[in-house]
Amino acid sequence: MAEKKYVYDFDEAYGLGKELLGGKGAGLAEMTHIGVPIPQGFTVTTEACAVYYDSGKKLPDFVVKQVFDAIAVIEKKTGKTFGGKKNPLLVSVRSGARVSMPGMMDTILNLGLNDAAFEALASETSNKRFAADCYRRFILMFTNIAKGHPRTEMDKMLEELKESRGYKLDTEITEAELLELVKEYKAYYKKVFGEDFPSDPKVQLIEAVSAVFRSWDNPRANVYRKMNEIPYSWGTAVNVQSMAFGNKGETSGTGVGFSRNPATGEKGIYAEYLPNAQGEDVVAGIRTPLHIDYLKEKMPAVYDQFMNTVHKLEDHYKDMQDMEFTVEDGKLYFLQTRNGKRTAQAGLKIANDLMDEGKIDEKTAVLRIDPRSLDTLLHPSFDVASLKAAKVLGVGLPASPGAGVGTLAFTAEDAEARHLKGEKVILVRAETSPEDIVGMNSSEAILTMRGGMTSHAAVVARGMGKTCVVGCATAVINEKKQTLTFNGKVYGVNDVLSVNGSTGEIYEGAIKLVPANLDSGDFGRIMKLADKFRKLHVRTNADTPRDAKQARAFGAEGIGLCRTEHMFFDADRIFHMRKMILSEDIKVREAALDAILPHQRDDFHQLYLAMEGEAVNIRLLDPPLHEFLPQDAGQIAELAKAIGVTVEHVNERIEYLHEFNPMMGHRGCRLDVTYPEIGRMQARAIIEAAILASKDLGKPVEPEIMIPLTFGIKEFRFVKQIIVEEAEKVLKEHGVKLNYHVGTMIEIPRAAITATSIAKEAEFFSFGTNDLTQMTFGFSRDDATKFLPDYYANRILEQDPFATIDQEGVGRLVRLATKEGKEGNAELHVGVCGEHGGDPTSVEFFHNSGLDYVSCSPFRVPVARLAAAQAQIKNPR
Amino acid sequence: MAEKKYVYDFDEAYGLGKELLGGKGAGLAEMTHIGVPIPQGFTVTTEACAVYYDSGKKLPDFVVKQVFDAIAVIEKKTGKTFGGKKNPLLVSVRSGARVSMPGMMDTILNLGLNDAAFEALASETSNKRFAADCYRRFILMFTNIAKGHPRTEMDKMLEELKESRGYKLDTEITEAELLELVKEYKAYYKKVFGEDFPSDPKVQLIEAVSAVFRSWDNPRANVYRKMNEIPYSWGTAVNVQSMAFGNKGETSGTGVGFSRNPATGEKGIYAEYLPNAQGEDVVAGIRTPLHIDYLKEKMPAVYDQFMNTVHKLEDHYKDMQDMEFTVEDGKLYFLQTRNGKRTAQAGLKIANDLMDEGKIDEKTAVLRIDPRSLDTLLHPSFDVASLKAAKVLGVGLPASPGAGVGTLAFTAEDAEARHLKGEKVILVRAETSPEDIVGMNSSEAILTMRGGMTSHAAVVARGMGKTCVVGCATAVINEKKQTLTFNGKVYGVNDVLSVNGSTGEIYEGAIKLVPANLDSGDFGRIMKLADKFRKLHVRTNADTPRDAKQARAFGAEGIGLCRTEHMFFDADRIFHMRKMILSEDIKVREAALDAILPHQRDDFHQLYLAMEGEAVNIRLLDPPLHEFLPQDAGQIAELAKAIGVTVEHVNERIEYLHEFNPMMGHRGCRLDVTYPEIGRMQARAIIEAAILASKDLGKPVEPEIMIPLTFGIKEFRFVKQIIVEEAEKVLKEHGVKLNYHVGTMIEIPRAAITATSIAKEAEFFSFGTNDLTQMTFGFSRDDATKFLPDYYANRILEQDPFATIDQEGVGRLVRLATKEGKEGNAELHVGVCGEHGGDPTSVEFFHNSGLDYVSCSPFRVPVARLAAAQAQIKNPR
Repeated sequence: MAEKKYVYDFDEAYGLGKELLGGKGAGLAEMTHIGVPIPQGFTVTTEACAVYYDSGKKLPDFVVKQVFDAIAVIEKKTGKTFGGKKNPLLVSVRSGARVSMPGMMDTILNLGLNDAAFEALASETSNKRFAADCYRRFILMFTNIAKGHPRTEMDKMLEELKESRGYKLDTEITEAELLELVKEYKAYYKKVFGEDFPSDPKVQLIEAVSAVFRSWDNPRANVYRKMNEIPYSWGTAVNVQSMAFGNKGETSGTGVGFSRNPATGEKGIYAEYLPNAQGEDVVAGIRTPLHIDYLKEKMPAVYDQFMNTVHKLEDHYKDMQDMEFTVEDGKLYFLQTRNGKRTAQAGLKIANDLMDEGKIDEKTAVLRIDPRSLDTLLHPSFDVASLKAAKVLGVGLPASPGAGVGTLAFTAEDAEARHLKGEKVILVRAETSPEDIVGMNSSEAILTMRGGMTSHAAVVARGMGKTCVVGCATAVINEKKQTLTFNGKVYGVNDVLSVNGSTGEIYEGAIKLVPANLDSGDFGRIMKLADKFRKLHVRTNADTPRDAKQARAFGAEGIGLCRTEHMFFDADRIFHMRKMILSEDIKVREAALDAILPHQRDDFHQLYLAMEGEAVNIRLLDPPLHEFLPQDAGQIAELAKAIGVTVEHVNERIEYLHEFNPMMGHRGCRLDVTYPEIGRMQARAIIEAAILASKDLGKPVEPEIMIPLTFGIKEFRFVKQIIVEEAEKVLKEHGVKLNYHVGTMIEIPRAAITATSIAKEAEFFSFGTNDLTQMTFGFSRDDATKFLPDYYANRILEQDPFATIDQEGVGRLVRLATKEGKEGNAELHVGVCGEHGGDPTSVEFFHNSGLDYVSCSPFRVPVARLAAAQAQIKNPR
Repeated sequence: MAEKKYVYDFDEAYGLGKELLGGKGAGLAEMTHIGVPIPQGFTVTTEACAVYYDSGKKLPDFVVKQVFDAIAVIEKKTGKTFGGKKNPLLVSVRSGARVSMPGMMDTILNLGLNDAAFEALASETSNKRFAADCYRRFILMFTNIAKGHPRTEMDKMLEELKESRGYKLDTEITEAELLELVKEYKAYYKKVFGEDFPSDPKVQLIEAVSAVFRSWDNPRANVYRKMNEIPYSWGTAVNVQSMAFGNKGETSGTGVGFSRNPATGEKGIYAEYLPNAQGEDVVAGIRTPLHIDYLKEKMPAVYDQFMNTVHKLEDHYKDMQDMEFTVEDGKLYFLQTRNGKRTAQAGLKIANDLMDEGKIDEKTAVLRIDPRSLDTLLHPSFDVASLKAAKVLGVGLPASPGAGVGTLAFTAEDAEARHLKGEKVILVRAETSPEDIVGMNSSEAILTMRGGMTSHAAVVARGMGKTCVVGCATAVINEKKQTLTFNGKVYGVNDVLSVNGSTGEIYEGAIKLVPANLDSGDFGRIMKLADKFRKLHVRTNADTPRDAKQARAFGAEGIGLCRTEHMFFDADRIFHMRKMILSEDIKVREAALDAILPHQRDDFHQLYLAMEGEAVNIRLLDPPLHEFLPQDAGQIAELAKAIGVTVEHVNERIEYLHEFNPMMGHRGCRLDVTYPEIGRMQARAIIEAAILASKDLGKPVEPEIMIPLTFGIKEFRFVKQIIVEEAEKVLKEHGVKLNYHVGTMIEIPRAAITATSIAKEAEFFSFGTNDLTQMTFGFSRDDATKFLPDYYANRILEQDPFATIDQEGVGRLVRLATKEGKEGNAELHVGVCGEHGGDPTSVEFFHNSGLDYVSCSPFRVPVARLAAAQAQIKNPR
């Protein structure tokens, strides 16, 4: 039997797929295949990563052997020798997971250097300073990344050197000084680890490959994966490539490029170039790169080859490419290509343009858009008039579009803390690092002093749909003093600024925001396609005419959930509500409900009008009654006086209504079982309003009446009877006919388990996946915040089950109840109205589970429409 | 197509079954078949009852026609005429459901009487007084039962008549006076109903049959059905029979008899006879019946026929019979026979005797005993005679059987203090909490105002075998004033009450107690048979060596659940527990746990010794930590001082630990995820104690370690690893080998749904059906007491799902998880440790679902053993 291959040379790896090679490895194999110039190398597969962990975080001998065999192949192809005293082969070692995880994984460059290889490299390139710089960088990266030791002390050595010599730039440091640093680094290494820095390149290589595998499990990677729903089990591959040196002098350099503008989607190559530098200089934002025109001017032939290759790559991948390249002594190497991250607006434009160019079809265009990205398009921008009057403090790179207004936070922690208190903040940082991710997500906008369009801040902010301006060099940020200075004027934590992510401008004070404008046509065109393909209907959760109108503008096909409890809190009704709750006399309760009826009827009437005849699903009162009662003594006294009872009586009743576990208490349809008069009043309001609205609209309104918290058929039947009796009574009183539908939430596990029988009498099911998740997991959302962090940290849960449906557990109940419900009643209409209805992954699951519709908050409606279309394209039904 | 039959003559009904004919109807058909003399008649089936309700509580014409056809058959057989002016046919109309519901259903006698029929009857029997009495009784019963009007006024007329004449007995009333009463009754009827009393026997008959059907739905019947788990859907049949007159004079009479003594089970016919009377005189207790010897003396031939028929009936039914008979003019008629109700002790003796007599086999003997009845044998009980005279103050839920008498204690401390002084007390609380445990154990009985069958008080009391009544909503408990009020009457610390844990009744004063008696040998013989047949193992829920020993004496085959939380409340450890909870420093927590370890180890050691090598299953700490913290300011201040922190700090921590829904909060294995040191300490205590006990016993102890509240495989795996690592460490330290098993509770719906994967790493499942019921229904047992009464009243729930497993919902999860768990792991051991483990209906369900064992509180163990045997006999596996 042939030995299992864990290592593939780039030219034998084509077609093996990202799962095995990782995204970067697959890209390198594919580039090799289509003739793009790249440095020789090989990929250590994701299967090797699994083997590494299975072997107790150790690379087994059979993998080690294959790695060295592959090194031998490079040696043969390049004529260089790994660890050779002459013509030494130096390599880069990079991670490459199945999907890109920017800034999360680690890279080691110039591996293979030792004293002898340094001498050889120096002599063979006639550039001793370059060789010394490589050596210094390598020791630093190896110590920091492969050995996991902080780089602080070594950075300090460099800084002290520069300070002592009065240097501003790294490039001013001399060859001798670099070699002095190499010695200092090595001595430091020995002090820290108690052994010499490894001079054997083979030891270096195996250590580096192991370090990449290890980094899959580092806390930053885990956070990123959780945010992006990337399974831990995928693992990463490692790519080992002979080095291309961008720092060999003025005919060398490094760059990054996009085949189209990643911020706007405009056609035309968008690239940046940094002469005499290695890639890390660009990514780390240490130096700000130049426009690609610099290359055109200095090395037109290389520029032409670059442009041709970019077109070749985009034609091949049929999508906008994000590339890294290096020029070594006038020779061009592509180091990586991948489908580029882009803003939502750019994503839409690129998809439409590629479709118009005949490169992709409609379905592919729909699949190209990340539904989550649409969120950013729906959010506000600056009012143009106000903008004209605003004072521009500075301009940076427009890294991620949008408009953000807030007070300044100088640390991620502060941003998060103030965000939790409800404050709107702008995160201001010299540059961001992966530790800042949560703070970034808590901010209205991010502003950095350093970094380019592909710096950490820029890439992450675009992913989040956060407004972001980077590389604003005129901003002086003092993180310690918590000040931001523009032209001598100092702004602190209490000052408000406005950030324009679309232009890069920073303004003083708060500029007026105007709602999102979706008129460019790209959005509408893609949404129209989405509606063409999707089978799943999309409704909205809306309690007010305003929300309902907003949702209709976003394409909602009806209201899937109108919560009626909010309607009881208005000043003109809460008094009656409380009076009802405090009374044990049905006559008093009925009189109080009679007083609420006209208000409730008017609420529904307005809602029907806003929906113009589209479906409106109204849920009966859900929360426990004690939620409506006042808490503090003053209010209690006031209430007692108003109702004409003693304070003691009110307190006794509050005490009586107290619940140990209100989430599992006297709420939902249990209220209607005990107090049928509540259900009767609501049924009357719903039907009377429908009669009025039908007349106003000149077409029939067919309300859907939803019974919450049902656990079984007998309970459903009992409450349905209360509703139907009152509804029929109202219709008889008015002498009209009107269709209405009575159905139930499925949010109690038992309801899902006994769906067959409930479906026989229910006209619809609507999964309340919030409560269903709580009951199925047995934890309350409010209390779980205390222990869920431990669950994420220990990977017991990989994602928030309240954000994305738990397919294995809760999802099984959804599938079961849908299947058995429809078996019990072929006409049963099935939807979902929990938060999950607007989550793309969950929407796909609901499509695959055979639901008829999802209902979500208004701003999620476009997201759900697109996700539904993608689900249908991937898995037609 | 033949018309559907709703009415069967007795001689064509044999073999049609109780479902259709009801128990009484089937008995009459069977008696006819075996030649027992009974009055002619027919049965209107239970299907007619359904038709009656389906037709809007109206008897449809096609049923009416069949009834009159059957009347015609009786007329032909008896030569009498229904409504005839000569030789009139009078009938009785009786209810007869599938199972006997004594006192719940209503009977009408002498139907068919009107003025003409009265004259005919009077003349043909030469007994005008008898005919007048029949007439009077009939009008009374018809008005009361068929028309649903209270008999108060009519009874008053009779009493006034007797008083005015100075009569003591009804028999002293003259014929003329009776006829006067008939007139008065008729006038009264007209006054009440505005119409004449119906003189048409056909109208009377249809009204009476309808009344019987209607009475199926009366409140008393509904209560009885709920108590006895009889489905509403069964309905009742109606039996119409020509009257046999026991009140025709001295050669007439009526009686009841048992073929054996129903109180003791002694062999020998046990019967009573009342001359010149109808059955209602006996049942109503108006006159005291005589011994059957009276009949022997007066009419030896009739007596002999009676005795022979009784033997024939018992031989036929092979069980003790409960019979009604009438003698009319020296001719014997049996009116009814059925398997007789008996005391638990009698039930055992009769089963054993019938087995010895060769009438039934072992399996039948086992099936003959109602497992629920065993309860009364295991506890002292109230003296039956004294009970009859007692005043019932209120009724709560019978949470833990037994009888308790004592003065009232309103705090656990007071109960304990007075118990130590030798006083017998009843602990009276609004509800109990873990701090009350010692006080509960010091009391004769516990009474709470709030809580259901699985509330804290109920669960703990059952575990202790303490008499307990919970949720007694009519009791008003003022703990501050130390008063208990029933209907306005106030009882204090010096008042004595009696509590009946088997019925839920509370009585005023001290009722005489009689001790438990298991000495007859009948109990042991039946239990031995039960053990021979059953496949389901029976364990016990026990937290203390005392409980464990008690359970072993009752035949427990191991401990299925040892709750460790109670162990933390003892004075010598609660301080350390609180110290641990209050610290955020792991070192402090570990030190506190180290202090608890020796106590915990000793607890387990004693438990292992008590079980002598039988299985002991220990559950890790389950409740949320805040349950262990003090509540009142004084205790908080004391604790702060003892630990050396500020009161503010303690209060802050209490505030932090507060939960919105503690039932779904930070508890169970979630504690071990956050604080692995707790799990480690418990694992160490469990294993170290097992090492000690193995040495002491000279045989290996194999502890089972149970992880509570698991929701999925990753969580289980995480906690299991903590346990296994510590266990292995302990074993290594001691240099010994010892088997132990790690498994999980299945009490979260998601765990049941994902059982396949959990089973791959769990060695056992134990269904925690209390929590599983709460989560599956989505209601907390503590809060549900407020609305469940409405659910019972409206028949949404027909029984308490915390007492008997909900087979459709919760049960489906149990079946699913058992099946899929065993598919995932063929070696998986599956049991149940919720309260349902001691409920016979639930035990049968668990047997049928393929479980390996049930575990219940000690006093339920014999119940479960017998129920398990019956399940296997009914459905062998």
